[in-house]
Amino acid sequence: MEFSPLISDEKAPWPRNAWYVAATSAEIGDRPLGRQICGERMVFFRAGDGQVSALEDFCPHRGAPLSLGFVREGNLVCGYHGLEMGCNGRTAGMPGQRVGGFPPIRTFPVIERYGFIWVWPGDADEAYVDRLHHLPWAEDDGWAYGGGVYHIRCDYRLMIDNLMDLTHETYVHASSIGQREIDEAPVQTRVVGDEVVTSRFMPNVIAPPFWQLALRGAGLDDKGLVDRWQICRFSLPSHVMIEVGVALAGHGGYEADNALKASSIVVDFITPETETSHWYFWGMARQFSVDDAALTDTLCEQQGAVFREDMEMLELQQANLSRYPDRRLLKLNIDAGGVRSRMMIDRAIAEESLTLDAAAT
Amino acid sequence: MEFSPLISDEKAPWPRNAWYVAATSAEIGDRPLGRQICGERMVFFRAGDGQVSALEDFCPHRGAPLSLGFVREGNLVCGYHGLEMGCNGRTAGMPGQRVGGFPPIRTFPVIERYGFIWVWPGDADEAYVDRLHHLPWAEDDGWAYGGGVYHIRCDYRLMIDNLMDLTHETYVHASSIGQREIDEAPVQTRVVGDEVVTSRFMPNVIAPPFWQLALRGAGLDDKGLVDRWQICRFSLPSHVMIEVGVALAGHGGYEADNALKASSIVVDFITPETETSHWYFWGMARQFSVDDAALTDTLCEQQGAVFREDMEMLELQQANLSRYPDRRLLKLNIDAGGVRSRMMIDRAIAEESLTLDAAAT
Amino acid sequence: MEFSPLISDEKAPWPRNAWYVAATSAEIGDRPLGRQICGERMVFFRAGDGQVSALEDFCPHRGAPLSLGFVREGNLVCGYHGLEMGCNGRTAGMPGQRVGGFPPIRTFPVIERYGFIWVWPGDADEAYVDRLHHLPWAEDDGWAYGGGVYHIRCDYRLMIDNLMDLTHETYVHASSIGQREIDEAPVQTRVVGDEVVTSRFMPNVIAPPFWQLALRGAGLDDKGLVDRWQICRFSLPSHVMIEVGVALAGHGGYEADNALKASSIVVDFITPETETSHWYFWGMARQFSVDDAALTDTLCEQQGAVFREDMEMLELQQANLSRYPDRRLLKLNIDAGGVRSRMMIDRAIAEESLTLDAAAT
Repeated sequence: MEFSPLISDEKAPWPRNAWYVAATSAEIGDRPLGRQICGERMVFFRAGDGQVSALEDFCPHRGAPLSLGFVREGNLVCGYHGLEMGCNGRTAGMPGQRVGGFPPIRTFPVIERYGFIWVWPGDADEAYVDRLHHLPWAEDDGWAYGGGVYHIRCDYRLMIDNLMDLTHETYVHASSIGQREIDEAPVQTRVVGDEVVTSRFMPNVIAPPFWQLALRGAGLDDKGLVDRWQICRFSLPSHVMIEVGVALAGHGGYEADNALKASSIVVDFITPETETSHWYFWGMARQFSVDDAALTDTLCEQQGAVFREDMEMLELQQANLSRYPDRRLLKLNIDAGGVRSRMMIDRAIAEESLTLDAAAT
Repeated sequence: MEFSPLISDEKAPWPRNAWYVAATSAEIGDRPLGRQICGERMVFFRAGDGQVSALEDFCPHRGAPLSLGFVREGNLVCGYHGLEMGCNGRTAGMPGQRVGGFPPIRTFPVIERYGFIWVWPGDADEAYVDRLHHLPWAEDDGWAYGGGVYHIRCDYRLMIDNLMDLTHETYVHASSIGQREIDEAPVQTRVVGDEVVTSRFMPNVIAPPFWQLALRGAGLDDKGLVDRWQICRFSLPSHVMIEVGVALAGHGGYEADNALKASSIVVDFITPETETSHWYFWGMARQFSVDDAALTDTLCEQQGAVFREDMEMLELQQANLSRYPDRRLLKLNIDAGGVRSRMMIDRAIAEESLTLDAAAT
Repeated sequence: MEFSPLISDEKAPWPRNAWYVAATSAEIGDRPLGRQICGERMVFFRAGDGQVSALEDFCPHRGAPLSLGFVREGNLVCGYHGLEMGCNGRTAGMPGQRVGGFPPIRTFPVIERYGFIWVWPGDADEAYVDRLHHLPWAEDDGWAYGGGVYHIRCDYRLMIDNLMDLTHETYVHASSIGQREIDEAPVQTRVVGDEVVTSRFMPNVIAPPFWQLALRGAGLDDKGLVDRWQICRFSLPSHVMIEVGVALAGHGGYEADNALKASSIVVDFITPETETSHWYFWGMARQFSVDDAALTDTLCEQQGAVFREDMEMLELQQANLSRYPDRRLLKLNIDAGGVRSRMMIDRAIAEESLTLDAAAT
């Protein structure tokens, strides 16, 4: 049985053979969750053992979305006429019916790890666990994490551009994390192994409001000069991990002792939904005051407000680009992070295409 | 003068030469009503004698919708510049104008009967009164009726499928009329004359909440065992009358004496609006406690809530089918009612097409 | 550098070489305003000297709308990454960048006069100030003015039709300015120089509610008979100035002494946004009780309510016409004003097209 993707491989502007974050673990409880990932309508649910499965969100009986149903004894029961779908995409039963000949539906490889549900929209034979993005902080008690998810109506690559060029903080986030010195500090972009890395260092600056909050949270003076840094790391298919932080000035900056700094990793998983929309999983992992749950909530709320500012800009940028599809944009030094990341994406897509062609001949 | 239908005959997935319910009598009061039926924009209004007319909702002067106007001396006055349109589709007058040469607009045959406005979207020469669906209960004082109308964004045939396979009650209406025994009872489908009939009998069951309410309304014990039945009757173009009821167990079930049962007819007129939307006229005609107006209201409210549950499922099913137009669905024994009904529809459409071809040669 | 319009010249149903009202002066304050005019996305802002500029609403860096930014030292700063755009469409600066090679964006000629911002969407070389519509009352202390702006989803020419045939007042505005005698009075249409003029005179009538209000505002008896007039003047590209008023009956009507009448000019600037939407700048200039600011507010509120009635009709007329694009409409004597105005528009478009062809060969 073969399943054709909804959007043909040639056209889709994302790699298919990769682990994408589909949901947070908390989003999949007792009820199934329907969500479109990389152009595919999927339903996620936990079977009896709590393990998450992902299937096509389409009942083979009459085409109802399975995500409207419920879970019973490890199967997903269609909410329309009671067809019981197994985790393996085969109908396990249906009242009064022999289901042996029912056509299977597509399943998607899934892994639950680090508090996220990861899905592989492409060729299941390639879905090796060791291709999962590793998040060491997620399994280390020395770190705390808080985050959320936004639905954003723009090409996921505009979000990658956004995160790989933080000069926008000065303008879009002027009241929280932006400051003039971001513009002034030189930015450096390089490819290191599988990552595109863009970094910027700002010594001897006043911490902007968000970082003053973090300094207080870390039990440090929030009024004096600090050394600030931003190190953005893109990796396939569309993850951006950003090391950000401030250290009391003159103690080594990024290299300063943990006791003298407030630092964290801004975590961004950017999962395509359609060609002009995506799911944005954002969060922050930090190494200071990790037992302070109230601080986690406060930081998460502030970070959520910051990313809502990006959302408006990105959706209107998308609208403009859709209106003028042929207009070429500038690629400045500050854009190098996004440009390099897109090259890495394009190469991955091209390689998948070659593999498919080879398989077809 | 010829009028071309908005959607060509070949493509429209409904018979055109048939009486469709366009509105309830109560919907057409002093003001005109604009409504799209089978792809045609129509305006309905009552002339001086109270008789309802249906016209194209398009003023021949400047194209304004006539439904924004008002009725005066039996004519429909356009609310833009005062053109007076007669019931016959010819302009009756206009201030300061000679209207003799104004082009006529299309009229549609209309009948008001049984509390409904019925319209014939096809060839007016074929619009014989005797082709109207007969509703004996509507003219019999031994019956009471209550109902409503919903606008539903799905192909009208998905609603026919829904009503001709009541196994969905167990899942979609679990808290009101659904019960496990529906799944378990065998279903029988046959064609009887002009009708597709699907029936199911469930002896010795506990009545679900809605039927307990009905039993109490009929002055019967609502806690004991009952015999329950469902007999769905489809007839062209898209009417589904469902005999439903419960009798105290062991007294003959469907054949039991009226005093020992609560039975009714679920009335469903399913009128296409576009290819993916329809007007759903639903209601219930009953033979018990017919003078209890409060009971009529209660039953109507409950039934309305039940049908809202269908609405959500059907609209999301439509969305899924629109997304995967080439996917084939299963046709199980429980689907036989819908499958047979669609065959009857397809045959009617094909016959109309043949007639048109013959007329054209 | 050449800029192609978003909609090709051949297709756009409006003249491009003309001054259109883009905004009121009050709409452009400290912050930029994004608005689509004649198919072009524009951003309007005031530089340091208060002078208004109009640019393409598209940052040459990454395509963000410049209208989300802010004004600083006479430049428009992009709200995404801080590119500073000058009034001349050339990048004036950007932190850390050499901007000399940045591509310019399109500028549009702008004039601020009479309380409006006028923009020229076409060929800048043709944008002579003397082609601006002259509004003598706007610079005369003997007049008072109040007005507003509506966004209306219909072809701008439907609004011209509407204003050049006031018989609709009897139907659309029955409770404010409509009266039976409008229908009965003959209408006369003629072309006078660059204007299409449609006029109607109604001697010895009772003033409808709006005009009773105006008579009271002018200190005149509002219960007696009046002579009423309407003189609609269309001029290119899409301005309609309507002289309206009532005079105490028998004193010369339109020619009566100012002390015996309440008269005004209904001011209508109708600016295309897309092919099926426009910006409608409406207002009223009056010569009576010009110092009564409360009366200005009252009249403006009433006029706004009247024009909201047109909005509903026009948007539904547009929906009907979009549904039946091939249906021909009637052109009656009352439609002569609109018909002649459209001929003038079509001629202007054709002339622009010829000029373009000549330039191309």
